[in-house]
Amino acid sequence: MAEVTVSPEAFLAMGREVLAAQPFSRLIRAELAAFSRGRCELHVPVSESVKQQHGFVHGGVVSYAADNALTYAGGSALGMPVVTAEFKINYLRPAIGDRLIARAEAVHTGKTQSVCRCDVFILKDGEEKLCAVAQGTIAALSPKT
Amino acid sequence: MAEVTVSPEAFLAMGREVLAAQPFSRLIRAELAAFSRGRCELHVPVSESVKQQHGFVHGGVVSYAADNALTYAGGSALGMPVVTAEFKINYLRPAIGDRLIARAEAVHTGKTQSVCRCDVFILKDGEEKLCAVAQGTIAALSPKT
Amino acid sequence: MAEVTVSPEAFLAMGREVLAAQPFSRLIRAELAAFSRGRCELHVPVSESVKQQHGFVHGGVVSYAADNALTYAGGSALGMPVVTAEFKINYLRPAIGDRLIARAEAVHTGKTQSVCRCDVFILKDGEEKLCAVAQGTIAALSPKT
Amino acid sequence: MAEVTVSPEAFLAMGREVLAAQPFSRLIRAELAAFSRGRCELHVPVSESVKQQHGFVHGGVVSYAADNALTYAGGSALGMPVVTAEFKINYLRPAIGDRLIARAEAVHTGKTQSVCRCDVFILKDGEEKLCAVAQGTIAALSPKT
Repeated sequence: MAEVTVSPEAFLAMGREVLAAQPFSRLIRAELAAFSRGRCELHVPVSESVKQQHGFVHGGVVSYAADNALTYAGGSALGMPVVTAEFKINYLRPAIGDRLIARAEAVHTGKTQSVCRCDVFILKDGEEKLCAVAQGTIAALSPKT
Repeated sequence: MAEVTVSPEAFLAMGREVLAAQPFSRLIRAELAAFSRGRCELHVPVSESVKQQHGFVHGGVVSYAADNALTYAGGSALGMPVVTAEFKINYLRPAIGDRLIARAEAVHTGKTQSVCRCDVFILKDGEEKLCAVAQGTIAALSPKT
Repeated sequence: MAEVTVSPEAFLAMGREVLAAQPFSRLIRAELAAFSRGRCELHVPVSESVKQQHGFVHGGVVSYAADNALTYAGGSALGMPVVTAEFKINYLRPAIGDRLIARAEAVHTGKTQSVCRCDVFILKDGEEKLCAVAQGTIAALSPKT
Repeated sequence: MAEVTVSPEAFLAMGREVLAAQPFSRLIRAELAAFSRGRCELHVPVSESVKQQHGFVHGGVVSYAADNALTYAGGSALGMPVVTAEFKINYLRPAIGDRLIARAEAVHTGKTQSVCRCDVFILKDGEEKLCAVAQGTIAALSPKT
C-alpha cells in the first residue's frame, strides 16, 4: 500500500481541525502552534478564566495542556486514533504569565502505544520559564474500548 | 493553644468559598459536594463545553477534577495553604455521562506534605462508574515558592 | 469452553513457582504470602543486604516489592502473561522494621491491561506501618513485544 | 561563607563512597560511572541474579537503577542529604543485555526539593537501547522525617 505523503502544512491543519472539534479546548482557547509526527506544541493564552484564586494559571489547565500535548505527540507517532492511558505531572513553579506553552514528544513508540514526555512553559514578558514536566502513555483507541 | 472547632457546615462553606474564588473552577461549574479534614468530593456537571471530539468528557477535565480534589483533601489534612506538587492519573474508561464525581482522601500526612489518592467516577442514569484513579502529593505553599 | 477451576492452594502454588523462577526475587528472598485473582501479598524479609546507608530498607527494594505485587495482581486479573508497563510510587516514611509487606489489587481490568494499586507496609514489633503507595498499569505481554 | 571547591574526581569518589555504604547496591553490584552536580550515571552489570523468569533484567532492578540515579542527581543538585519522595517509571522494552545504564539529571531544583528525569538504557553488543524513562521528586531529608 502506498503511503500518502502529507505536507507539514496539511498535517498541522489536520491537527487544528481535531482541536477545533474539542469543545473544551475551544472553551479555554487552546491553539496548536506546531504539529508533526511525534511532536506537538500546544498553547493556552492566559485569560482570567483559566486562573485559580491566587492569580496563577489553574493546575487543571496546566495538566490539560500537558495531557493534550502528550496525546497529539503520541497519536501522531502511532498514526491512529488514540487516548491518553495515563500520565504523571510535576508542577515546578506557579504559572504566572501571558501564555502557557506545552511541548511534547514521543520517546518510544510501539505498535499500540507510545510513551511521551512534555515540558510546559509559561511565557512572561517574552521569556519562557519551565513550570511543569509530564510523562505518559498514549494508547491506540481500539484496545481500550 | 486552644484548637478552634469548626462545624462541618462551616468547613464545607469555607471550601466552597475557595472554589468560587477560582475562575477556572467557575468556568467549568465545579461544585464541592463534600469536604472534611482529609477528604473531599468534587463534582463537574457534564455539559457540551467540557467534552472532546468524541463526546466524552475531555481528559483535561477529568485530570482537573482529580487534581483539585487531591488538593482539597491534602490541604485540609495539612491545615494550611497548599499547592499540588505532582500527581499521576490512569484513565480507565471513557467518561460518558451526566456528572463527574471525584472523591479524594489523604493517605499519609506529614508536616509539610500530604500524599493523597483520588477515584473519579462518571454518573450515568443514576449509576456511578469508576473512570480514573489518581495519586499525588500536596505540599504546603511556603516551601515551594 | 469449560473454565477450569483452580483451588486457592493451587493458585498460590502456581504464583510461588513463578516467583521461584525469578533469580532476583530469590536473591532478596521475596515470598508470596497470598495470591488470588486480582490480589496479591508479597513479602520481603528485612536483612542487612536490602538496606541503604542509613539502615532503612533501600527504596529500590520497596519499589521492587510494589512493582512485583502490582504485576501479580494485574496478571492474575488478566489471566495471561504480563509485564509492568508503568507505575508510580510515593514513599511515605523510612522503612525500618523486620518485614516489608506489599498488598496489591486490580482496580480496573480490560482486555489487554489492568490498572492496579499497591500499599506497602513495614512490619515492626508486630505492627504494620504504611510506608509507600503505588499505582500502575500491567499489560498483556504480547502487544508490548 | 566561602564555598569549598570540590574537584570532579573528589565529587565522584564521594558519591562512590555513599553507594558502597548501601548494602543493597553492593548486593546487585551497582557502579557510579559519573557524578556531578545535578547529574549522575549509574550502572548495574547484568548477571543471572538480577533477572526475572524470562531472562530479562527484573523490573525491580530497572526501577532501583532509576530511583537511585534520580536520588544522586537530585541530592547533588540540592547539596544536602535527601530521599526519593516519589517517582514514576515507564518500561519501554525488555532489558536484555550486558549492562544497565541509568542517566539522571535535575530538571528543576528549589530549596527543599528537586524534580529529576532519568533515562535507563540496556547495553548489548556495544549498543545502548532505551528501556525505561522515569521522573520523580527528590526531597531534603529533614522535612520528611
